[in-house]
Amino acid sequence: MGTVPLLTDEEVSAEALAVFEDIRATRGTDFINNFWRSLAHNPALLKATWERLKIVMAPGALDPLVKEMIYVAISTANGCSYCVHSHTAAAKAKGMTPDMHGELLAVIGMAAQTNALVTGLQTQVDDAFKA
Amino acid sequence: MGTVPLLTDEEVSAEALAVFEDIRATRGTDFINNFWRSLAHNPALLKATWERLKIVMAPGALDPLVKEMIYVAISTANGCSYCVHSHTAAAKAKGMTPDMHGELLAVIGMAAQTNALVTGLQTQVDDAFKA
Amino acid sequence: MGTVPLLTDEEVSAEALAVFEDIRATRGTDFINNFWRSLAHNPALLKATWERLKIVMAPGALDPLVKEMIYVAISTANGCSYCVHSHTAAAKAKGMTPDMHGELLAVIGMAAQTNALVTGLQTQVDDAFKA
Amino acid sequence: MGTVPLLTDEEVSAEALAVFEDIRATRGTDFINNFWRSLAHNPALLKATWERLKIVMAPGALDPLVKEMIYVAISTANGCSYCVHSHTAAAKAKGMTPDMHGELLAVIGMAAQTNALVTGLQTQVDDAFKA
Amino acid sequence: MGTVPLLTDEEVSAEALAVFEDIRATRGTDFINNFWRSLAHNPALLKATWERLKIVMAPGALDPLVKEMIYVAISTANGCSYCVHSHTAAAKAKGMTPDMHGELLAVIGMAAQTNALVTGLQTQVDDAFKA
Amino acid sequence: MGTVPLLTDEEVSAEALAVFEDIRATRGTDFINNFWRSLAHNPALLKATWERLKIVMAPGALDPLVKEMIYVAISTANGCSYCVHSHTAAAKAKGMTPDMHGELLAVIGMAAQTNALVTGLQTQVDDAFKA
Repeated sequence: MGTVPLLTDEEVSAEALAVFEDIRATRGTDFINNFWRSLAHNPALLKATWERLKIVMAPGALDPLVKEMIYVAISTANGCSYCVHSHTAAAKAKGMTPDMHGELLAVIGMAAQTNALVTGLQTQVDDAFKA
Repeated sequence: MGTVPLLTDEEVSAEALAVFEDIRATRGTDFINNFWRSLAHNPALLKATWERLKIVMAPGALDPLVKEMIYVAISTANGCSYCVHSHTAAAKAKGMTPDMHGELLAVIGMAAQTNALVTGLQTQVDDAFKA
Repeated sequence: MGTVPLLTDEEVSAEALAVFEDIRATRGTDFINNFWRSLAHNPALLKATWERLKIVMAPGALDPLVKEMIYVAISTANGCSYCVHSHTAAAKAKGMTPDMHGELLAVIGMAAQTNALVTGLQTQVDDAFKA
Repeated sequence: MGTVPLLTDEEVSAEALAVFEDIRATRGTDFINNFWRSLAHNPALLKATWERLKIVMAPGALDPLVKEMIYVAISTANGCSYCVHSHTAAAKAKGMTPDMHGELLAVIGMAAQTNALVTGLQTQVDDAFKA
Repeated sequence: MGTVPLLTDEEVSAEALAVFEDIRATRGTDFINNFWRSLAHNPALLKATWERLKIVMAPGALDPLVKEMIYVAISTANGCSYCVHSHTAAAKAKGMTPDMHGELLAVIGMAAQTNALVTGLQTQVDDAFKA
Repeated sequence: MGTVPLLTDEEVSAEALAVFEDIRATRGTDFINNFWRSLAHNPALLKATWERLKIVMAPGALDPLVKEMIYVAISTANGCSYCVHSHTAAAKAKGMTPDMHGELLAVIGMAAQTNALVTGLQTQVDDAFKA
């Protein structure tokens, strides 16, 4: 699989390797997952994506675990197998328990169901909901 | 808009009206939003949907505001305009601040972006992510 | 709305008008719905789309009402508001009763829900299901 | 693959096992497919999903084969590989012939195409289609 | 419509106004479209989005019109009405002729159709296509 | 994988084989990729799909490489793994360089992100964008 080969540390450009090093330092691990190794064919895209991700996923008004579960939700709705795997693993690493995972899945399923029902019914938006 | 007309309290069946009453009692408001009024053409579907929603969105291992933001995320990824409106309003009612909303949107956008990049690259799932 | 204006019979090319006439003759009505009026900016695309649609939706191993409900299902999953409206109207015209509509929506909602659950779980396909 | 491991009969809770037994009795087979084995980590979600599915897919105003083909359509539009496999197998078991499968695919493809064209054109909904 | 109100120049923060000014200078127009006015509730998100967009859409290995048509394609597949409108208008402004628009739509429709067929068939990827 | 088996030249009907021969002649290669081999169960669908594809992807107001990149974009947004692989390979064969591929991915990612932001914000379409 893959539309481009995965790149090893030895194969990437200096700019990409610097991103890898920042990923390692930020996450406190030597592991660079395949997404970054495939994105490294385009160092500028790799760098922009990682730097933005680091900001977006940092603690803020929402805590990192909540952000990770939202990430799982979007990845699920978009049918991105890789992303569901990687962000579910990340959510578990940040403390998502089996019960939380079960509830996350239940909400995802419920939302998908009512999204479909509303779209099938083409229900008009209530004025009360408009900002 | 709408593939079925919205039904007033006077037009719905007794079974549907009982659901409306439970929605009112549970939410502490007289307001019944259009989704339920369009779904009321099918009282059994209305009842099953509402009763499941009530369970899924109740406090549990995840708090109701987190669940509501996950609901917004799925609705956004699925492009359901009604659902984005209604669940964003619900999230605000449950305490989502503008800063939280901004971060929710930022995570949604980031996830959509990396989902697309991964899909374009067809990156294979790392063994480390498989359960 | 619209990225192109709707074209009247007077504004379309001769090739497009011939398609309109075939739509009218096939359907036994003078009404040309907006999809065809917006597609008429590209007569070749209009003609290819209509001629293929006519074949695909004709009675065959599946009856036209079943085909129309499948069309509604896809349009719903794809979030195409126009298409949900037009094909729900077509399904009603071909005999879809309110009970059938309710069951169609229930299946659509159920499928959307389990699709999401499976994607969130990343369940591997059973060997028994592979052709 | 999988964000959770598949559970054997010996590993699931009593509540989940009771659901497995009902699936077996309802379907007249010992086979429990992987979806239920992955969902069994959350017995309440497993039970709610199965019980609802049993009702939704039962004979009614629409026959079970038609429902199964609608399920395949939604699963296809949502890009759920597992679901396309499992529900295509189910549709074949319920009598879907190769000709019916071919027409199902043709309608799915046609709908996806016109959904995309309409969305690209942003065609406004005809008043005649509004309920 | 809108989950947040649109903000005027007078209502936005200084940071957001600076982004508006850069949009105006870059595009050579006073017009600020609604996307930026709704995003301005979150100045940091506004700024990050605009600055990245400016880089991504600049001339490079692909010319700006090609990029704009790719943007229309993605927006169409994602069912984003606003985005289809805004990027179709942008493509026209950059030189997309009616014939080019027609071909863009034809490719979008064709791809959506074969995407659906492949997904329904669950065709395995040819080894020849793997990088 | 696959909901139908792949068919060899020896297994397909005469009508399907004629399509295979036209694919070979048009592309100047003996290779028939799996999509056509799975679609060959339905010779009429195979023939209609191939003949339409040949027209749509031919040089016109847009050049074939641009069309192929638009095809990749749609396939990515629709999450069709097979299609992303096959059309990325086709785009490379038609001259897409690594830099062009990188920019294609960057635009795809950017569009997915702003599509999601707009949908989350439910921004109303500017009058200036309506045709």
